[in-house]
Amino acid sequence: MAAWKDAVPVASEQFDRKREMLLHEAAASFNRRGYYGTSLAEIAKKLGVTKAALYTYVPSKEDLLYYCHEAAMENAMETLHKAQAGGGNGLQKLTSTLCHYMGMTLGDKGAYVVLLEENAMKPAHARAIINRRDKFEQGLREFVVEGIADGSIVQCNPKLAVFMMMGALNWGRKWFRPNGAWSGAQIAFAMTQMLERSISSAPSEALINDPGTITLEPGNEEDAKSSRRRLA
Amino acid sequence: MAAWKDAVPVASEQFDRKREMLLHEAAASFNRRGYYGTSLAEIAKKLGVTKAALYTYVPSKEDLLYYCHEAAMENAMETLHKAQAGGGNGLQKLTSTLCHYMGMTLGDKGAYVVLLEENAMKPAHARAIINRRDKFEQGLREFVVEGIADGSIVQCNPKLAVFMMMGALNWGRKWFRPNGAWSGAQIAFAMTQMLERSISSAPSEALINDPGTITLEPGNEEDAKSSRRRLA
Repeated sequence: MAAWKDAVPVASEQFDRKREMLLHEAAASFNRRGYYGTSLAEIAKKLGVTKAALYTYVPSKEDLLYYCHEAAMENAMETLHKAQAGGGNGLQKLTSTLCHYMGMTLGDKGAYVVLLEENAMKPAHARAIINRRDKFEQGLREFVVEGIADGSIVQCNPKLAVFMMMGALNWGRKWFRPNGAWSGAQIAFAMTQMLERSISSAPSEALINDPGTITLEPGNEEDAKSSRRRLA
Repeated sequence: MAAWKDAVPVASEQFDRKREMLLHEAAASFNRRGYYGTSLAEIAKKLGVTKAALYTYVPSKEDLLYYCHEAAMENAMETLHKAQAGGGNGLQKLTSTLCHYMGMTLGDKGAYVVLLEENAMKPAHARAIINRRDKFEQGLREFVVEGIADGSIVQCNPKLAVFMMMGALNWGRKWFRPNGAWSGAQIAFAMTQMLERSISSAPSEALINDPGTITLEPGNEEDAKSSRRRLA
């Protein structure tokens, strides 16, 4: 019995960790080659397991895509709720969410598929993800509206502002190289600073010249956030 | 002989126009469903022709993707060269290029595939397109460097600024709806204004509230450019 008692939590932890790795690897492939260009066999090969082993974690490639999107939207909504709870003005809530969101999309823990290909998911799955994405974008727009009202953001179109920002952030997955000169957290920080300037009522005199010089304590997004606050 | 003399130019014009329509339709499909999710049969159906008829214009789906990217990069480089020739400071050259480029990607004349999926093209084709895209982005970065030197742009990282802008602009293809409230030219104008503010040394007091109210004379991108100058 002791063996089981010990084994069960360990096994379930392992399951979660393996599932996370699978989602991460799958998201990377979906982002690079698109849904139709990605095969489960290829993902299995990258993970050093058989294709059959993957079916323990996911019933089909379509479900895998859905799980990736679901995990991404869950993380995104979490950053939004944290910013709402964190207080401050509209601009601060907005930039806090953007910086965390981008840090996660470029981090190595997330399972982010940023490109939503039409018809790749079953209609019910697609609807569920689009609904959540719309809620996330709606939350960001509300921060912009709040910022215009409290004077931290200049008059602008909140819908267009959020489209611009989501484009700038999501595009990161297309050009970011994990072993490049800038870490994901450094890019998230510098990119957010630039996006902030586009609508801030008190635009900064200068922007970061070299994102590689930004000092962030180990731990990634949280540090990007706290450094942000220290510098602000 | 007269019949031939009349017929030949007409036929070649028709060929060009049909090829253009084909590239446009193909680009729309590639953007929506990705390369691997798009079939020649589907494109033929949308154009109301047989799949065999398409082979008059293009030897394969892979070539079709390449032609789309090629046409897009040709148009992009043209906007860059026009801005270089047009003079002004670094910021003006940059925003003129961005506004024209986005107007084209959202226009109904272009053949734009903005998402470069890895491994979709033959290595030689991919290299050719990546080289041209790098030249385009390099040109934009030089405008930023020029703008920092002439004082029109604040200190910032030119590479990051261009990545941010390309993301914001290219993302437009993902959310733009041709029959929506805002035209492609109106969006290009308002988006460029917002991006300009992110790095301008003289950020505007307010931004356009409703892109739908921007008055642009018929003719699309050229008008976006001249309205821009009128307002500037």
